[in-house]
Amino acid sequence: MGVTIHREAHFNAAHRLFRAEWSDEKNAAVFGKCSNPNYHGHNYRLLVSISGEIDPETGFVMDMKQLKELIVKYVEDYLDHKNLNLDVCEFKELNPTLENIIVVIYNRLRPHIAVDKKLSIKLWETRHNSATYSE
Amino acid sequence: MGVTIHREAHFNAAHRLFRAEWSDEKNAAVFGKCSNPNYHGHNYRLLVSISGEIDPETGFVMDMKQLKELIVKYVEDYLDHKNLNLDVCEFKELNPTLENIIVVIYNRLRPHIAVDKKLSIKLWETRHNSATYSE
Amino acid sequence: MGVTIHREAHFNAAHRLFRAEWSDEKNAAVFGKCSNPNYHGHNYRLLVSISGEIDPETGFVMDMKQLKELIVKYVEDYLDHKNLNLDVCEFKELNPTLENIIVVIYNRLRPHIAVDKKLSIKLWETRHNSATYSE
Amino acid sequence: MGVTIHREAHFNAAHRLFRAEWSDEKNAAVFGKCSNPNYHGHNYRLLVSISGEIDPETGFVMDMKQLKELIVKYVEDYLDHKNLNLDVCEFKELNPTLENIIVVIYNRLRPHIAVDKKLSIKLWETRHNSATYSE
Amino acid sequence: MGVTIHREAHFNAAHRLFRAEWSDEKNAAVFGKCSNPNYHGHNYRLLVSISGEIDPETGFVMDMKQLKELIVKYVEDYLDHKNLNLDVCEFKELNPTLENIIVVIYNRLRPHIAVDKKLSIKLWETRHNSATYSE
Amino acid sequence: MGVTIHREAHFNAAHRLFRAEWSDEKNAAVFGKCSNPNYHGHNYRLLVSISGEIDPETGFVMDMKQLKELIVKYVEDYLDHKNLNLDVCEFKELNPTLENIIVVIYNRLRPHIAVDKKLSIKLWETRHNSATYSE
Repeated sequence: MGVTIHREAHFNAAHRLFRAEWSDEKNAAVFGKCSNPNYHGHNYRLLVSISGEIDPETGFVMDMKQLKELIVKYVEDYLDHKNLNLDVCEFKELNPTLENIIVVIYNRLRPHIAVDKKLSIKLWETRHNSATYSE
Repeated sequence: MGVTIHREAHFNAAHRLFRAEWSDEKNAAVFGKCSNPNYHGHNYRLLVSISGEIDPETGFVMDMKQLKELIVKYVEDYLDHKNLNLDVCEFKELNPTLENIIVVIYNRLRPHIAVDKKLSIKLWETRHNSATYSE
Repeated sequence: MGVTIHREAHFNAAHRLFRAEWSDEKNAAVFGKCSNPNYHGHNYRLLVSISGEIDPETGFVMDMKQLKELIVKYVEDYLDHKNLNLDVCEFKELNPTLENIIVVIYNRLRPHIAVDKKLSIKLWETRHNSATYSE
Repeated sequence: MGVTIHREAHFNAAHRLFRAEWSDEKNAAVFGKCSNPNYHGHNYRLLVSISGEIDPETGFVMDMKQLKELIVKYVEDYLDHKNLNLDVCEFKELNPTLENIIVVIYNRLRPHIAVDKKLSIKLWETRHNSATYSE
Repeated sequence: MGVTIHREAHFNAAHRLFRAEWSDEKNAAVFGKCSNPNYHGHNYRLLVSISGEIDPETGFVMDMKQLKELIVKYVEDYLDHKNLNLDVCEFKELNPTLENIIVVIYNRLRPHIAVDKKLSIKLWETRHNSATYSE
Repeated sequence: MGVTIHREAHFNAAHRLFRAEWSDEKNAAVFGKCSNPNYHGHNYRLLVSISGEIDPETGFVMDMKQLKELIVKYVEDYLDHKNLNLDVCEFKELNPTLENIIVVIYNRLRPHIAVDKKLSIKLWETRHNSATYSE
C-alpha cells in the first residue's frame, strides 16, 4: 500500500525578479514591484513529499529524521538567510521565481532520495502564492 | 517540467441550502441548520491552481498578478459580500453547496485560462469542510 | 498566582450593517458592501478568556469542560447558523458590528462566570478583522 | 464532474515507536526520542477525503454531516485520549507510526463509504510531519 | 519605550490528569477522558514573552537567539517527548494541567531572564485550549 | 465600555541587521546570519490595534475600512517589496530589528489616529519571532 509522507521546513531569503538583458521598463512591466533592484524578501515555507511502500519492519515510508536532515543540509543551510540572486549559484542566470526555486530544490534533493521513491516539492512564497512539482 | 501554481483568495457570503420543491420538513431533515430560511454565512477561502510548463523567459507557469486579477474580476467581485441564493444568478435554481459553488467558480474562470493549462479549484467553507475539483 | 485560560469556539452567521433610520445612500456610504440588504456572512472565531487563581486541588482556574459547555449553550446554540439581524433579538435594533456582537456575547456569558473571575472576549470576523473586550 | 470533499477532525493520543523484539539500543537508534518507554503524545489532525460525482438533487458528493458522524464514531471515539500502544488493539503488534495509523484509520472507515466513492486519508502528527494515503 | 518580544516553541508530551488520593470515579467525574490511566498526549505550543526597553545599540529588547537557546535548554529539552507525570519531577505530585505546566515553565525560565525584564508565558494544549501567565 | 479593534496586514521586505561602526566580526557575532551583507528577507505580518469607546451610532470603535486605508497608505505602500536598509529613510542609521520596525510603524500611524484612542502594534517577522508595543 503506497503512502506519501510530508515534511515541512522554512527558509528566509531576499530576491528580485528580473532578466539582465531586459530594460528596466520591461522588467518593471513584467515583474512589477518584485523587480526592485534593492531586493525584497520572503519567509519561504517548504513541503517535501516522499511516496513509496511502508517498510513493514519500521512502519516508515522513509525515516522522517533522515528526511529532515537532508532538507537541512541541502536546502535550509543552502538558502536560509541568503540573497537568492547574489548568494546562490543556480540563480546567477536563472530568475528566482517560485517555479524555478522549486526546480532548484528538486534537483538538490533528488540524488539523495531512493530511486524507488517519488519526490514532490511544494513551496509557499506568501500565504497566498505557492507552487508544486510532483514526479 | 510541469509545475502547478496556486493562488489563494477569499470571499464572505450568505447562503442557505434547500430545494424549493421540497417541504420544510424534508429540507430540515436533509440540510439541517444549513436550511435556515433567514440564511447564515461563511468566510470562503479559495485556492485556484494552474498547471503547465514553466516559460523559460519569465520563469512563470502563469503570471501570478494576472491570475490574481482574474480571480478578483470573475470570482471575488461576483461573490464577495453577496447572498449566494438571492444575488448570484447561477444559484437561482442551484443549491449553493461547496460542490456546486466550485462548479460555478470553475465555469467562470475556465474561459480565461489558456487551453494548454489545467485548472483546479479548492474551496473551504469552514476550517473543517472543504472540496476540490481537478481537471 | 493569577492565570488566564482561553477557550476557542466558532459560529457561522449572516448579517448586514445598517441603521434603519438612515437612507440607503448613507448606509452604503458608511457601511459599504457590508450593508447589502440581502445579507452576507462570516465564520466567526471566538476566544473566551477567564482570569483567576489556580485551584490547588484541581490545578484549574476553571474547568475547561464547563467553560466549553457554557459557550455552546449561551453563544454557539444562540448564534450559529443564524441571521444575526433577523434571528437574534439583541440585534433587532443594534447594529451587529464586531464590537456590538462582543458586547452581546459578554452580557450572555457574564452571569454564568464566577464574580471573582475576570472575563474577556475576543472575536474574529475574518482573518484580518477582530476585536477584544477585557474587564 | 468528479469532485472531492474533505472533512477535518482531531484526536489527541499518546504513543511510542518501538519493536518489542529489538533491543533498547536498536529501538533508540532507529526511533530516537520517539521510543521513550513512558510514551509521549500528539494532537493528531486528520483530513478525510471522499471523491465522486455530485448528486444533482442535493448538490452533495456525500452528506458532510454523515461523514462527520462516521469519523466521530469510527475514528475519534476510538482513538481520542487513548494510548495507541496500550488501548488500541490494532497497535498491539503494529508500530503506531503516521503511516500505520493512516492504514488503521483507512481500514476502519472504508466499509462505511460507498464503493463507488474513493477514500483518501491525510494525517498530521505535528505541524511539520504528515502523511497521506490515496486510493 | 517599552516593547515586548515573543518567541514561539513546541514540545510533544504525554500526560494524564488525576489526583492519587481520589477514587477512580472522582477522577473520571472531574477530569473526564483526560484521566485515562494509560495517558494521552498533546503537541504543546509555547509562547515566551519578554518585556523591556529597547537597547539602543543592538535594537533588541533581548537577543532572540539567546531567548531561543534558553527555551531549548530549560523547556524543550526538559519536556519534549516526555511523559509529564512519570518523567518530570515537578509533576510527581502536581497535576499537569495547562495552568500548572505554565507555572513550571515560568519557574524554570525566570532565573535566566534579567530582573528588569518582565516574563510572560502562553501555552496551547490544543488549538482550542490555552492559558497565559503575565507578570 | 472600551473595546479594542484589530486589523491585520502584511508586507514583504529585505533587510540585514548590522551596525556600520562595528567590524564584520562583531556584527557576525551579535547578529549571526541576520547580518548577511547581501540581505535576506521576510513576510512581515502586522496587527494594528485601536482601543476606545464604541460609537453608539455606527457600532464602531473606528471604521475598519478607514483603518485599513491608513495602514495601506502609511505602512504597506511604504515598506512592501522594499529593502528596509536601503529604501526606507528611517533605517538609514537605525537597525531594522523587529523592535525598531515597530517603533517606525507606530510613529507613522500615530498622527492619523484620534488622540482619544490608544494604538498598539504587533509585528511577526517569522511564525516564531514577533514583538508588540502597546500605549
